[in-house]
Amino acid sequence: MTLEAMTLAHPIVTTHQAILDEATDALSNRRFYTRYPEVPSTRVYGETAAADGLAAYLAHLDSTYAGLLSQPTDGTFVGSEVSPYGPALGVRYPHLDLDAAIAAAQAAIPGWRDAGARVRAAVCVEMIERLHKRSHEMANAVMHTSGQSFIMAFQAGGPHSQDRALEAVAAALIEQERVPESVIWEKPGRDAPIRMQKDYRIVPRGVAMMVGCNTFPTWNGFPGLFASLATGNPVIVKPHPRAILPLAITVELAREVLVENGFDAALVQLAAEDDGEGLAKTLAERPEVKVIDYTGGPGFGAWLESYGAQHGKLVYTEKAGINSIVVDSTDNLRGMLANLAFSFSLYTGQMCTAPQNVFVPEQITTDEGVLSFDEFADRLAAAITRLTADEAKAVEVTGATVNPQVRANSTAHEEIAAKTGGRVVLASRPVTHPAYPDAVCRTPGLVAVAAGDQAVYCKEWFGPVVFLIRTGSTAESLALFTSTIIEHGAMTAAVYSTDEEILDDARDAAAEAGVNLSENLTQGIYVNQAAAFSDYHGTGANPAANASYTDAAFVAGRFRVVTSRRHLA
Amino acid sequence: MTLEAMTLAHPIVTTHQAILDEATDALSNRRFYTRYPEVPSTRVYGETAAADGLAAYLAHLDSTYAGLLSQPTDGTFVGSEVSPYGPALGVRYPHLDLDAAIAAAQAAIPGWRDAGARVRAAVCVEMIERLHKRSHEMANAVMHTSGQSFIMAFQAGGPHSQDRALEAVAAALIEQERVPESVIWEKPGRDAPIRMQKDYRIVPRGVAMMVGCNTFPTWNGFPGLFASLATGNPVIVKPHPRAILPLAITVELAREVLVENGFDAALVQLAAEDDGEGLAKTLAERPEVKVIDYTGGPGFGAWLESYGAQHGKLVYTEKAGINSIVVDSTDNLRGMLANLAFSFSLYTGQMCTAPQNVFVPEQITTDEGVLSFDEFADRLAAAITRLTADEAKAVEVTGATVNPQVRANSTAHEEIAAKTGGRVVLASRPVTHPAYPDAVCRTPGLVAVAAGDQAVYCKEWFGPVVFLIRTGSTAESLALFTSTIIEHGAMTAAVYSTDEEILDDARDAAAEAGVNLSENLTQGIYVNQAAAFSDYHGTGANPAANASYTDAAFVAGRFRVVTSRRHLA
Repeated sequence: MTLEAMTLAHPIVTTHQAILDEATDALSNRRFYTRYPEVPSTRVYGETAAADGLAAYLAHLDSTYAGLLSQPTDGTFVGSEVSPYGPALGVRYPHLDLDAAIAAAQAAIPGWRDAGARVRAAVCVEMIERLHKRSHEMANAVMHTSGQSFIMAFQAGGPHSQDRALEAVAAALIEQERVPESVIWEKPGRDAPIRMQKDYRIVPRGVAMMVGCNTFPTWNGFPGLFASLATGNPVIVKPHPRAILPLAITVELAREVLVENGFDAALVQLAAEDDGEGLAKTLAERPEVKVIDYTGGPGFGAWLESYGAQHGKLVYTEKAGINSIVVDSTDNLRGMLANLAFSFSLYTGQMCTAPQNVFVPEQITTDEGVLSFDEFADRLAAAITRLTADEAKAVEVTGATVNPQVRANSTAHEEIAAKTGGRVVLASRPVTHPAYPDAVCRTPGLVAVAAGDQAVYCKEWFGPVVFLIRTGSTAESLALFTSTIIEHGAMTAAVYSTDEEILDDARDAAAEAGVNLSENLTQGIYVNQAAAFSDYHGTGANPAANASYTDAAFVAGRFRVVTSRRHLA
Repeated sequence: MTLEAMTLAHPIVTTHQAILDEATDALSNRRFYTRYPEVPSTRVYGETAAADGLAAYLAHLDSTYAGLLSQPTDGTFVGSEVSPYGPALGVRYPHLDLDAAIAAAQAAIPGWRDAGARVRAAVCVEMIERLHKRSHEMANAVMHTSGQSFIMAFQAGGPHSQDRALEAVAAALIEQERVPESVIWEKPGRDAPIRMQKDYRIVPRGVAMMVGCNTFPTWNGFPGLFASLATGNPVIVKPHPRAILPLAITVELAREVLVENGFDAALVQLAAEDDGEGLAKTLAERPEVKVIDYTGGPGFGAWLESYGAQHGKLVYTEKAGINSIVVDSTDNLRGMLANLAFSFSLYTGQMCTAPQNVFVPEQITTDEGVLSFDEFADRLAAAITRLTADEAKAVEVTGATVNPQVRANSTAHEEIAAKTGGRVVLASRPVTHPAYPDAVCRTPGLVAVAAGDQAVYCKEWFGPVVFLIRTGSTAESLALFTSTIIEHGAMTAAVYSTDEEILDDARDAAAEAGVNLSENLTQGIYVNQAAAFSDYHGTGANPAANASYTDAAFVAGRFRVVTSRRHLA
């Protein structure tokens, strides 16, 4: 049977044809597109979805994750997840037998490779559709591993992750289908033409590894997972030791879908570990592992990049950065302040897209008159205080702090001010969670520093730390914006100005720094947000990340083309 | 003026629209396409082209290369090229002032970046069209630096290089134009939709370097040069110290085209050096250099890959490999032998695509009966002897040896046989060139070795060295084929069999090894050849090369997309 016949013969291709058509079209035009509704309303998800999802989540707790016992295990179990909201999860995951797991992954390659790009894409869509049905269960799992609020965990961990997954599958399909399956090549000759048949075969790189992070286990994990899988590579998912459950649910479900569709479950495996095992490094060093996706700290990320290059591995990383905002002027001060206050507060600054450095000149012109640097700072503080005044509402924005480092940063403002001679404009405030008294929740803190205090503001302060950086002019702000991002990286950036020339300068600065720019956000869109199918997440053009969700470069290297050619009569 | 308006306003876009349409279409369907005729006939190139080209070449000799004096130089001159055919070229090239050159390259970025993908592509086409007009001059320059015969230097150094350049430009344009310039994003909202304008800007990585090789300065150099340039990166061309002239001609011409079209000449610069300066390493270590294309030895190539990864540089390499052929059976023994004899003889095995390792079982079935391993070996030797019997004709196939290492390999057959206990089936023979008595020309030599002699045949013997490797069966041949290529790499591979099952097995072996396969070549197509727009050159899937001419991965990473978005009323 030819590849084409196999593709046509697999019923899942027909089942998901329309979704793939829609998604590839959306990715090409980059207009608004979402397949998975972000509002957890009963109208969309059904009357019992919330309760069912919670029950499904609770059923995982304090027990062995039985759905992964079909993996090759070494007989031991791991799992020490504790919710940032307080309770220990008590889930015990089987620990992988790495040799057996890698051998199983490799053995699964030929069948998956030869199924062809369209069958793989359709099988991936089936996984995503089923993930969607479990969005409430996933929301609870993400909430209690990342510390996100429920609504954020639902959106970011559920539909937004699913959209990003579908986007990666669409991007992978587009690139693979640009390669024809077979052509007749006919070169004019002196007497008769020379005719050859050339068959182009898509082959995967090898075993892929996706290293998940603590804060966005699915949103940051799915693009690499699905891009690798859709291009034919079996994937070993290595979750963060404190955010295993969301990826365990994902892997279990993916394995079920694979088997139901006649493929080997070993194409997706979960390599859970406890803190300190160093499993990501162990796996990265395995010669069979050829593709690595990583979201996490810059130290290990840099090691992965370097080691990978020396050993012929593709490595896609998202590490750390100093997301920056230039404030010049505004015709909507209230809108700007509200927008910024929300951006700083959202998930306690624990998003890789959260802004940290705000460059402000001595004076800014607004629709409420000219404000000095300090007046602006105080107005911003007031906006944050207003946004977070109602503690029950505040925690729905901030969620809970995820780890001790974030908690330490939350209380570092006085120390930073003392060190720099700056001013604590607003101290980070603890907030009591009405339902989870053990959760450590914090509001953002603001510290005013001088432009010269780069030693302080040129590193990432993960958590509720915002620097207001006093500059002599917007021109100086833009120069610092560019030079600091070129050196230290950024995932996001924003500018506020009423002056078209300054906006143009900011666009040039962003182009030079290689960072995506949001201009004058005053409504319900925040610099932290990147919409699948339209916004690129990261650019790969500065040190914060070497990859972008989801451009052609993110998928094109994950497969290779092998040609066989022969004469035709 | 918007980017779109600028693009439309530049007349070169209209001039070369049809060529770009044709080329992008050809690349998408991968059928036969060539823009530049490979036959140097007077009918195509004109009555005086050959004489004019020779005169233009001779005019370069024994003088300063004045066309590059507009580059920032340090006041010194380099150049010690000696033709493999004997004469010293005597061309003196200005030596670049690196600091000034890199600063000039960086300063040239904004204008080139903001011109847009289509203007850049059209300017590149203009360069290639002009290179085409100088194909005879280039043929002489390539012949007298690489040692290729004139006809090969004409084809590979001229039209085939030009086709590969056009292919790279087309691939770059396709990927860049997949990103829309600007979209209106409209998200349905509770009351009114949220509307944003998003502008996507293509930005280059930074300064690119193309490191040329001695044997195919243009064919192997143009894909990287034009892919980088078309995606917005200024390129510093660092030619091999013994093959400067072809790239000097290219750079001079490119700079003329840039200036004529309103761009900065510093977008293409030549960094010529003498042997031993180590300029490629110096340039690679410059932080401004972000993209590196390299063809050459595996030692420095591996260093580049590793150093580049540690410093955020994209590195595309083609290093070395052991190109392999599996002989099982044939229904056209004469055709097969003639084809192989030519493949071994062509340019004295100095092509990166030349076959080296031939796996042959104890017996092969042919249309002339069953042959033993030794009978087959002797028939192959006879075919080579026949092909190279007429010395004047032979040198038109073999060209001249390019360096002392090749010459040493040419006489290593006895030593190899002694070491392995193998048999010299055919010794490499010196051939006298009728026009160039100082040229060292050699015919291929064949050594029969055992399957276990991997220590000998698992390294690249650049030059006229072919191993006939005795195996127990074709199954063993295929197993060795796969395992040795996975470990040591290969640019090309071939199989001869009349058995469809064995051909299927060979295709699977090639897919696993990640190497392109030619099946049963007996006519005027050789395993060494890869046609632009149809055949991928290399796969990037084995250690011989991490890149492929020209797939999406070869171009997609050379640019990044920076978005700016803002609310719309």
